[in-house]
Amino acid sequence: MHFTSELRHGNGVLERDFTLGEIPGTLWTPEAAPAPLILMAHNNGLPRHEPRLVARARYTAAQGYALVTIDAPDCGERPRSAATDQTRAELRRAMQAGEPVDEIFESLVGPLVDNAAPEWLSTLDAVLELPGIGGPVGYSGWTALGIRLAATEPRIAAAGLFAGGYVPRALREEARQVTVPLLFLLQWDDEGNPRQRALDLFDAFGSTEKTMHANMGGHVGTPWFEQEDGGRFYDRHLR
Amino acid sequence: MHFTSELRHGNGVLERDFTLGEIPGTLWTPEAAPAPLILMAHNNGLPRHEPRLVARARYTAAQGYALVTIDAPDCGERPRSAATDQTRAELRRAMQAGEPVDEIFESLVGPLVDNAAPEWLSTLDAVLELPGIGGPVGYSGWTALGIRLAATEPRIAAAGLFAGGYVPRALREEARQVTVPLLFLLQWDDEGNPRQRALDLFDAFGSTEKTMHANMGGHVGTPWFEQEDGGRFYDRHLR
Repeated sequence: MHFTSELRHGNGVLERDFTLGEIPGTLWTPEAAPAPLILMAHNNGLPRHEPRLVARARYTAAQGYALVTIDAPDCGERPRSAATDQTRAELRRAMQAGEPVDEIFESLVGPLVDNAAPEWLSTLDAVLELPGIGGPVGYSGWTALGIRLAATEPRIAAAGLFAGGYVPRALREEARQVTVPLLFLLQWDDEGNPRQRALDLFDAFGSTEKTMHANMGGHVGTPWFEQEDGGRFYDRHLR
Repeated sequence: MHFTSELRHGNGVLERDFTLGEIPGTLWTPEAAPAPLILMAHNNGLPRHEPRLVARARYTAAQGYALVTIDAPDCGERPRSAATDQTRAELRRAMQAGEPVDEIFESLVGPLVDNAAPEWLSTLDAVLELPGIGGPVGYSGWTALGIRLAATEPRIAAAGLFAGGYVPRALREEARQVTVPLLFLLQWDDEGNPRQRALDLFDAFGSTEKTMHANMGGHVGTPWFEQEDGGRFYDRHLR
C-alpha cells in the first residue's frame, strides 16, 4: 500500500489517497487508535471521490472510525473496458427510450461485483496491517457488493446497505446467506429502484437482526439524520 | 386535575396518578422545566399500568420529556360496557377458531378511538395548564388513535406510531390528512398486523417527513435501540 496524498482535517481526521497495486483508494483515519474499520462502497461503483461519499466518510471518521474506499475495476479512475462502456451506453439508451433495463443491469452489475469483490478483500487485508486500525469490520453502501462481501467474508461483522441500486438476481438469492446485523436504508420513491423489489430483498436476508429505515423521497433524498442513525448502528456492532 | 399518588424516582422523574373527572391517568415529569409533552397511548387501549408502557414512559421522562397517559373508556381501570365485553369475547372466539376478524376489529376499535379522542384532548388541555410543561406536543403509541389526534389537533407536532394494532378503514383514509413528521415503527412479522396493510398505511400518510423503522420479530419484539431512536425523533421535532 503506497500513500500518494495526505490531507489533515482540523478535527484530526487524516485523509490519504493510496494505490495498492493497480487499485486506487482513499483511507480516512481518526486520531484515536485503534479504530474499527468500515469498508465504504458506492452504489454501482461510482467514483470514490463522489462528494456525497467523501462527506459521509469524513463525518464517520470524525466519530472515531477508519474508512476505506476504492475505485473498483471499470469505476472511477480505473480504465474502462470496451464491454462495460458499451453496456453503459446501451443502458442510457434504453432508459431514455423507456425500455426495460433489468437484463442490461444484470449484465452490467453482475460482473462489476464479481470483479470488485476480490479487490475489496485485498484492500481489507492491507488496511488491517496498518497500525491503529482494528477489527471488527463494518460495511457501508453499495448493496449488491455488500451482499457478496457479507456472505463470504467472516471478518465483516455488520453492514449498512443503501437500497438504491440494481441487485442482480443471483445476489438477491445470495442475500439469504447473509447473517450479520443489517441496517437497510430505503428511499420510498427511489426512481431507479422498485420499492417492492427492495422490500423483498430486505425480507430475504438471513440475518436475525435487521432493521429497515425507509424515508420519503427519491434516490438522493436520504435525510441527514440517517447519517447519525448509521453511526449508532456501527457503534452497537463494531465497538 | 386531581393527583392521587406520587412517586419520585432517583433520577428526579416524578410519576403521579391523577383523575380528571372520570378519566384516570398518569403523568411523568422530569426535573428540568419547561418540558415538552408527549401523549403516550397504548395500542387498542391496553391499561395504562402495562409494564412496557410504564418502562417507556420512565425512560423518556428521564430524557427530559413530560408524558401523560390515560385509561380511555372501556380500557384499563374504566368500567366495561356490555357491548365492548361482548365484542371482545367474540374476537377471542373468532381468533381461536381461525376465522376472519377484520369486521369484529372494525366494530371494536372504531368506537374505542371515537370515545378516547375527546378524553385525550381534555387531558391535553389540563396538562398544558400545569406549571413546567410546554409545547410543542408529541404523540407516541397506538396508531389508530394517533391518526385521529394528529389529523384533527394542531397542537400535535410529531407522532411516533407503533404499527401493531388494527386500524379501522375510516382511519386508514384519515391518515391522508396527517401531515406532521412521523416515525412509524413496524415489527416485520407482527402476528396481529398484516405486513402489507402496515406498508400501505405508511404510504398513505400525508406527511412529507415520515420514516419507517422495520425490525425482525413479532408484536412484542421491538429492539431496545428503537427507544433511543424514538427519543432522537422527538428531540428533532419537540425541542
